[in-house]
Amino acid sequence: MKAKTNFTMLCDFYELTMANGYFQTGLQDRICYFDIFYRTVPDKGGFALTAGLAQAVEYIQNLRFDREDIEYLRSKDCFSEDFLDYLAHFRFTGDLWAMPEGTPIFPGEPILTVRAPAIQAQFVETFLLLTLNHQSLIATKANRIVRAAEGRPVAEFGSRRAQGADGALLGARASYIAGCAATACTLADQSFGAPATGTMAHSWVQMFPDEYTAFQTYCQLYPQNAVLLVDTYNVLKSGVPNAIRAFQEVLLPQGITNCGIRLDSGDLTYLSQKARQMLDEAGLTDCKIFASNALDEYIIRDLIRQGARIDSFGVGERLITSRSEPVFGGVYKLAAIEDSDGTIIPKIKISENAAKITNPHFKKVYRIFSKDTGKAEADLICLHDETVDENEPLELFDPEATWKRKTYTNFEARELLVPIFRGGELVYEVPSISASRAYCQRQVDALWDEVKRFENPHNYYVDLSQKLFDIKQGLLNAHER
Amino acid sequence: MKAKTNFTMLCDFYELTMANGYFQTGLQDRICYFDIFYRTVPDKGGFALTAGLAQAVEYIQNLRFDREDIEYLRSKDCFSEDFLDYLAHFRFTGDLWAMPEGTPIFPGEPILTVRAPAIQAQFVETFLLLTLNHQSLIATKANRIVRAAEGRPVAEFGSRRAQGADGALLGARASYIAGCAATACTLADQSFGAPATGTMAHSWVQMFPDEYTAFQTYCQLYPQNAVLLVDTYNVLKSGVPNAIRAFQEVLLPQGITNCGIRLDSGDLTYLSQKARQMLDEAGLTDCKIFASNALDEYIIRDLIRQGARIDSFGVGERLITSRSEPVFGGVYKLAAIEDSDGTIIPKIKISENAAKITNPHFKKVYRIFSKDTGKAEADLICLHDETVDENEPLELFDPEATWKRKTYTNFEARELLVPIFRGGELVYEVPSISASRAYCQRQVDALWDEVKRFENPHNYYVDLSQKLFDIKQGLLNAHER
Repeated sequence: MKAKTNFTMLCDFYELTMANGYFQTGLQDRICYFDIFYRTVPDKGGFALTAGLAQAVEYIQNLRFDREDIEYLRSKDCFSEDFLDYLAHFRFTGDLWAMPEGTPIFPGEPILTVRAPAIQAQFVETFLLLTLNHQSLIATKANRIVRAAEGRPVAEFGSRRAQGADGALLGARASYIAGCAATACTLADQSFGAPATGTMAHSWVQMFPDEYTAFQTYCQLYPQNAVLLVDTYNVLKSGVPNAIRAFQEVLLPQGITNCGIRLDSGDLTYLSQKARQMLDEAGLTDCKIFASNALDEYIIRDLIRQGARIDSFGVGERLITSRSEPVFGGVYKLAAIEDSDGTIIPKIKISENAAKITNPHFKKVYRIFSKDTGKAEADLICLHDETVDENEPLELFDPEATWKRKTYTNFEARELLVPIFRGGELVYEVPSISASRAYCQRQVDALWDEVKRFENPHNYYVDLSQKLFDIKQGLLNAHER
Repeated sequence: MKAKTNFTMLCDFYELTMANGYFQTGLQDRICYFDIFYRTVPDKGGFALTAGLAQAVEYIQNLRFDREDIEYLRSKDCFSEDFLDYLAHFRFTGDLWAMPEGTPIFPGEPILTVRAPAIQAQFVETFLLLTLNHQSLIATKANRIVRAAEGRPVAEFGSRRAQGADGALLGARASYIAGCAATACTLADQSFGAPATGTMAHSWVQMFPDEYTAFQTYCQLYPQNAVLLVDTYNVLKSGVPNAIRAFQEVLLPQGITNCGIRLDSGDLTYLSQKARQMLDEAGLTDCKIFASNALDEYIIRDLIRQGARIDSFGVGERLITSRSEPVFGGVYKLAAIEDSDGTIIPKIKISENAAKITNPHFKKVYRIFSKDTGKAEADLICLHDETVDENEPLELFDPEATWKRKTYTNFEARELLVPIFRGGELVYEVPSISASRAYCQRQVDALWDEVKRFENPHNYYVDLSQKLFDIKQGLLNAHER
């Protein structure tokens, strides 16, 4: 778990059959460009967040077939010895660009680009997609939930319902980057510094002769962090009164007032209001009310609207699996190849469905920020060798409805894809997750509220440069002929 | 990845605060019984399948805090040195019973029971739930999809959309146990022997000057396993004709007829019928048609009903994340504790919601099979020391509607919970996944078709013995007083 892990064999088998094919046909060193992008924002939202780059970096750095892997592949009886020998020395020697973790991302734009010899560029597909899809999914969902809580802390609680150990651990990581305040997952704290939190289960209460004794004991053990679970028997008749008694008898004499109760069932609005009243009447105005139980952004929004007196939320299965939309549909598509003289030949994947047609060529992405408001106005995808001059007016147009045009002045154009690997060497310093979390918050703050709506968000524009647009049209026309 | 992994720190932080609490209050050696059970069948189905036991076994065997873990815990400043010293020597010394992987399971019945000193029994909660919830979820979904395919092979294809590496690897494992024929995940083959399969991506076709050359090259490389992806440009105008030409020019002269094409977009019914006709007219009647693209049990059922000519299905994101229902709600609840003299004291968790009230006490589960039909008729949960005499008529009653009674004769009563650990020692031989797959198929075959419906399945009875029923009622009444 804690050692650097080699995930080389976590690949779709066709990556290997194709690799062998490129090797046998002399295509293995052909330089290819692949992009990762996605097509639809989960939960009908206005944007997603990218996450998982740190694990992608670790994957690339540890990419190698060991002796056992080669033996296994030999046993499949479909790979030649010279190919197996090639694999034994296989390393990633290419270039990789990506958007930093926590960046808001929009459909159709490359969030990661690989430039590498064909076998390498193709081979990394499965794991890069897996890790970016997973963590981007959870980061996107977590950020929705955090926004719904309107400043109240949200703790990620879902390990027991996660889809596997990495689902729990890296889901906790992505949730923290996206704005969660804490996690129940101890390993996420130990591994990444996402602060772990937690107090008691119902079984703690059941282990003692009665609820009061369970609470009293807990307050004696953890006077500075006594959050008591009050719904094992009956919240208002038993749980809250026993908690008040334990706080009054154990904590107040020590001068401690920052205690808490947790509600984990029932009508959270009603119970939190009644509990707040009981706590206040007992003079425990500093006592916080935590709530959990099948929460998500919609339920949290409704609780707050209805006046629930909840100070902090614990969110489990609906966050850690992104239950309402558990798939992030990032894809990995060939965008270009290089001729032997280094000329870039753009490639396109055609589809009857216009939204599924890819953007060809080696590209970069600018985000245009208004200098007046600081807000992000649009993204511009252009060719790798185009630059935006901030001193000139910039005209963008909708690539689907080209008559829709808008000219920007007084803007900042920030490049989003940053170099991660150059010639196989890591050239990027992976930020701490707290740095990524702060960056994420700044980037989300720079989006207009209209883009952040849960329902019917404003459509944020992702436009193509004239040059890229012309190349794409040219390829489509050529294909039609 | 391949080393035995220590997941000790993958626990909710409250397991540690409670453990310290039991340690400080002298409760650490109190023997506790915890059950894992679930409450609702995913996707409104009639049953679920249990999976993940092998990983639970591995977890228990590797359970230990290393020096680094202890250092980390010390840094949290809430654990005493004597407790940290206790953790440094922490091992699982208890007993564990579980239903074998691939067993059909029904709401409310224990699928795993732990009997151990309090700290141990509580501590293993997070990971046991995580692994059983995840793999049971995927096994249950995979079995639905396999049943929808009515004997046509289903391959699991979803690694790139899985929720993390374990989501991909162990999801592939669970899918295979539940009846999938193969997986795209190479590591699942290498690690567990779930056969890996796969041929080409669209990028293979795009790498060559034209589609025909891409197909011809592939057939030359893999004449025995040539499944050509025919939808990069246009399935019927280009893909299928080019595939036919490649088969005729490369394979038929070698006498090879067992080739295939794969459809990955468009209307699969229409395209498969047209492609079948074109292949048959070319004499390629042995050529198989594979289909993929956002499939699940409902779409597969519809394709078959509408006469699609598909021989084999590849299923991705909707299987590997169980997209329609991505959470399996297994819970871990205290069922009993032991007095210092070994007397078992049953414990119950009360709830306003009757379905959430737990079944107390140390229990076992019988599945009643009719000797006439071989079919499973009902499950009976009883006390650990009760036995069912197959030579006597057995009267069962509905625990919610006690007047509903049924008497069974000529039946076999099979115990479902088998010993896994005794006093910390593994006493169970974990079967190979192919053995689990065969077992699973036999057990699912023993269910009535009515229980296997996707919509409105027949409610399979899970009844309580009279003794267990009386104890439960007694605890409920005592609580009410």
